[in-house]
Parts: sequence; C-alpha cells; structure tokens
Amino acid sequence: MGLDPKALSGQAREKAMPEQKPQNVKPKQTADPLPSWNDNNLKRSILDFVTRVSTEGGADFVPPIERIAVFDNDGTLWCEQPFYIQLAFALDRVKALVPAHPEWRTTQPFQAVLEDDHQALGAAGMKGLLELAVATHTGMTSDEFDRIAREWFATARHPRFNRLYTDLAYQPMVELLGYLRASGFKTYIVSAGGIEFMRVISERLYGIPPEQVIGSSGKIKYELRNGVPVIVRLPEFDFFDDKEGKPVAIQKFIGHRPIAAFGNSDGDQQMLQWTAAGPGRRLMLLVDHTDAEREFVYRVSPMGRLELALDEAHQRGWTVVSMKNDWKSIFSFDK
Amino acid sequence: MGLDPKALSGQAREKAMPEQKPQNVKPKQTADPLPSWNDNNLKRSILDFVTRVSTEGGADFVPPIERIAVFDNDGTLWCEQPFYIQLAFALDRVKALVPAHPEWRTTQPFQAVLEDDHQALGAAGMKGLLELAVATHTGMTSDEFDRIAREWFATARHPRFNRLYTDLAYQPMVELLGYLRASGFKTYIVSAGGIEFMRVISERLYGIPPEQVIGSSGKIKYELRNGVPVIVRLPEFDFFDDKEGKPVAIQKFIGHRPIAAFGNSDGDQQMLQWTAAGPGRRLMLLVDHTDAEREFVYRVSPMGRLELALDEAHQRGWTVVSMKNDWKSIFSFDK
Repeated sequence: MGLDPKALSGQAREKAMPEQKPQNVKPKQTADPLPSWNDNNLKRSILDFVTRVSTEGGADFVPPIERIAVFDNDGTLWCEQPFYIQLAFALDRVKALVPAHPEWRTTQPFQAVLEDDHQALGAAGMKGLLELAVATHTGMTSDEFDRIAREWFATARHPRFNRLYTDLAYQPMVELLGYLRASGFKTYIVSAGGIEFMRVISERLYGIPPEQVIGSSGKIKYELRNGVPVIVRLPEFDFFDDKEGKPVAIQKFIGHRPIAAFGNSDGDQQMLQWTAAGPGRRLMLLVDHTDAEREFVYRVSPMGRLELALDEAHQRGWTVVSMKNDWKSIFSFDK
Repeated sequence: MGLDPKALSGQAREKAMPEQKPQNVKPKQTADPLPSWNDNNLKRSILDFVTRVSTEGGADFVPPIERIAVFDNDGTLWCEQPFYIQLAFALDRVKALVPAHPEWRTTQPFQAVLEDDHQALGAAGMKGLLELAVATHTGMTSDEFDRIAREWFATARHPRFNRLYTDLAYQPMVELLGYLRASGFKTYIVSAGGIEFMRVISERLYGIPPEQVIGSSGKIKYELRNGVPVIVRLPEFDFFDDKEGKPVAIQKFIGHRPIAAFGNSDGDQQMLQWTAAGPGRRLMLLVDHTDAEREFVYRVSPMGRLELALDEAHQRGWTVVSMKNDWKSIFSFDK
C-alpha cells in the first residue's frame, strides 16, 4: 500500500481488532473503552446504552443478530471540510487525466477544476459535479478503480492539516466503533459517498470490511473481455444513498432495522428516524462541528447542512455531540 | 413463530451455530463435518480445499476477510420442484386474496391460478408471473410482508413430500455451510429469489443472517405515515439477481470476490466464472439433480436449466455433485 505506518498509528489498534466477534462478549468494565471522550453525562449515556443492550438477562437486552449500528461517513467518521474527501479525489483525478483530455482546459466544469476556480465550480452545481464524477469514476473496471483510489490515498494530503486523508478519521468515533463491536454489534457505514471509494479504506481506518459499507453507486456491468470476467463501471448513476435513500439502503442491504445510528447532517435525518422508530432502547447521535481550533465550525456549508435533523434531535432527545466540548482529542495526531 | 419444532430438527444444530465465528478457527480434524456426504473423492476434494485455504502458513492460505462463499438458493440449498417455493407462496396468496379481488376469477393470469390451470399459467409467461408478483408481493410495508411470509411458512406444505417448506433444505448443504463458517468463511446467499422472502427463513434454515442474503428486489420507498416511518414495497421491479446480475450483485453488496461459489443452473454460471477468475485456490460447485427417488431428476425444466454451466464445469474442472451418488441423505427427514 505504501502508506506511512506512523500515519496509521491511531488505527493500528483498531485494525488488529477483528470485525467478527464471538457473540455475547461483554464490554470490559475495567478499562475505559472511550478514552478520547471527555468524562461527562454524554459519554456515560453511551456507555449505559451499550451495557444495557448487551447485558444478557437485563430488561433492555438485544440479541446479537439485532445489534446493528449504522454510521454516516463524511463529517461523522472523518473530516469533510473544506471538501468531501471524495471530491478532493475527483479534482485530483481531473488534473491527472488532463493530458489525455486537452479539451478539458477550455470546457466547464473541468476548466474550473484545472484553474482552481471555486466560483465557477460552484456555478456548475450538481450537474457539474456529476460530470466530474462520471469523468473520474467510470469507464474503468472495478479492480482498476480500486487501484487508482488506493494509490491516491497513499500520497494525497489534506490542505489544512497536511496529513494523509487516511489520518483524518475521528479518533473518538474509531473508539466507539471498536467498543460497539466488542459489545457484539455489527457496524456499518451508510453514506452518500461512493460505495467502492469508501471500501478502499473502511477496513483500515474503521475495522469495517467492504461488505459492511453501503453508499451511493453508479451502474456496473459484468462482461467477459477475451474470456476474462470483469466488472465495468458505467457512466450512469444508480443510487443516491442520502436522506430517504438511507433507510431504503438499510432495508435492502441489511434487512433489519438498526438499534443505533450516527450522523452529522440533514442527510442522516431519515436514517435516525427509522432507527428511532423501532421498539426497545435505541441510540441516535449527531456530531455537531463546533471546534474551529482542532477541526472546523459549521452547520450550513456547501458540504451539507445540519438544521432539520438538529431540530428533530432536540425535540426527541437524540444525543448531540459537541466536538469541542465532548471530545478530548479529535484526530489520532492531536495531543 | 408457530413452526413444528420437529420439522426443524435438521436445522436446530445449525441454528445454534453462530454465524459470526472467531477468525482462524481450524476445522476439527476428528469429527466428520459432512456426515451426509458419501465418503468419496468429491467429498475429500471439498475437505481438502477448505483445509488448505484456512490453514495459516500453508501455501494456499486465504485471510479470513477474503474467505467469502456464495450460494444460490433454489435447487442449491433447498428444493425448487415442482415450483420455486416463492412461486408456491405467490399462488397461495392469490387464493387467499381473491375475496378482496373478485375480478381475478375472470382475469388472467389470476384465473389460471384459481383454477389450478397450469397450461394457462404457462401461457401467461414471464409477464404473467410478474403480474402475480406485483399483486402478491407489493403494496404493503416491508414489516407487513415479513409477517405474511412468516405465517405462510408456518403452515404451507410441499405437494409431494407433505412437509413444511422449511423442512426442504438440503441437509448436505446445511452441513457444508456450517463447516465453511467453522473454517472462518462468511457465507452468503446470492439468488434470483426475492431478497425479503428469503430473509424470513435464512437464519433459521441456513444460519445465514438477513444481511448476508442477496436476491432480486422490487423498488421500495421510505415514508412517514402519521409520523411513523415505514418502508413501502412499490409495484415496480428493481433488480434481477440472476446470470450477469449475480456478479454485479456480489460486487455491489459484498465488494470483494468470493473464493467459493455453489449453484445448480445456468443462472449461476456467471457467478461461478467470476469466482473462478480470481487468484489462488477456489471452489466452484454445481448440484446436479439426479435422484428421482429421494428428490427430482431434471436438467431442463420450467424452473431453470443446467446446460451451459454444466458444459463450462466439465471444460474447467469445476465440481459437479450428483445428488444420487454423492449425498447419503438429501433432507433431514431422510433415513
């Protein structure tokens, strides 16, 4: 992979922790499973929820097969500012591919990307973004795309933190994922991000295997090329895993309702609603980006908004994490 | 669930075996993990494959995260004659719903179902079957469909064996599923059958949880009904998980290539091709229905054909199981 091993130190422990756990494992009561969370009522409420649903014989016990936890990715598990990481990938790919596409120098939205003209890029809107996605994410086989994404992750760096993007997982959430799995949960990503893009890093960063990653996708096709089977990525959008799409994807891919859901934007509202509406004890949590010093402060941004979901969280008593107040550290490289 | 516990005796052991196993569990060398398979070279080749890929340090070792095995369902894991079990369900549902749809008595293909007129039903073709599927499988919420299917499985019986359909899993394949999982495999169903129909029984019959069942599906929709979130089954087909659709679904749902694939018809050919084309040791297996006495004899039938896949199996040396010669017993109720 060629990744700097030091850059992965925060995830190393996580990776060593196998996703497949024996059932009915109890959380260790002695060691703190969430050391990067400040010791307050919010943290205690998470520990309380997990202990209750995983304690056999207790009133709130949930059988392991139903202990499903779903996580949004961008802004919930890793940084999404100033651009979604997948958008940064697409922009870099346009620059890498321009020698084979000289016409892009004078065609929008490509020209905007090549000239770092954020205003023109913004003006291109959703239609422009889809054109960029098609140009950079389709036309190759799935194996080729996997390789291209891996190579990008090995070197591309975040503009503010000057770290590999694989370093930008939120350490408290990585701990929470591991804690849930150690308590018999099966952990899923349910994100508007591209399913095959996230699968490249999900095991390494989060301990989540490819088959537990659900995302947006383009159409793909099976064919034989000189007798060799390949999966080809077609230039046609298939499924947008956001808002109402999230419970739909959960039903399709998982087939039962989660008992815990984690998000950070209005795109996660329906997933949290769907999770909340089942019987028994449940945990719905939103991450609120409140820390300008260590990360970013935003609720309304070009990378999504947190308005309707926050209103519903306040009405219904869902958990809202303030990154500034509730997280001792945000990234594994924080002191 | 109201099911006859005796009818499940063959699956009871399987159900008690959790799907999630610790990694690197070695198959027990002492007990026979496949007692319903005749002791011959075919059985030894399966044991040899599983031992090789799961023995750490061996030349053929495959890390647990890549130990993915995919199984067709109809005709591979359970009986598909004289009708696919889901078709029997649809026919029974037409009869149950006719009081609310008196017009069906004089409208095809419903009239054919109500009059057990198999010739007229055959004449209605694929279009007729889709009409039956829409009439019996859509318009309700996913929770309602789940309940309807569970109730049907609790009482409906196979016309020849006079057994609950949940009794018609192939015992040798149930043993194989358990053996693979005990050897660190993750087992999946990849079937042209309806995804939500199979999920009702997959854990009970095969030890496969809902999230490891992939199948054909109709479009579904998330909505709030009086503030309560529901998933509604729409009268629109979405995805046909057969032939080229199987590797496509494997890529979409699982995201890595299996190392073992099991089928019984031309609908499974591409799934076996895709599995075979990866590096390292692989197992591709077809079940050939050769036992008129204990089950059925067929290769070409209205419920699918085994021709092209069998040719390719012979050319490439894939494993072909003769139910008559290779299986000591077929169902758990066989002596």
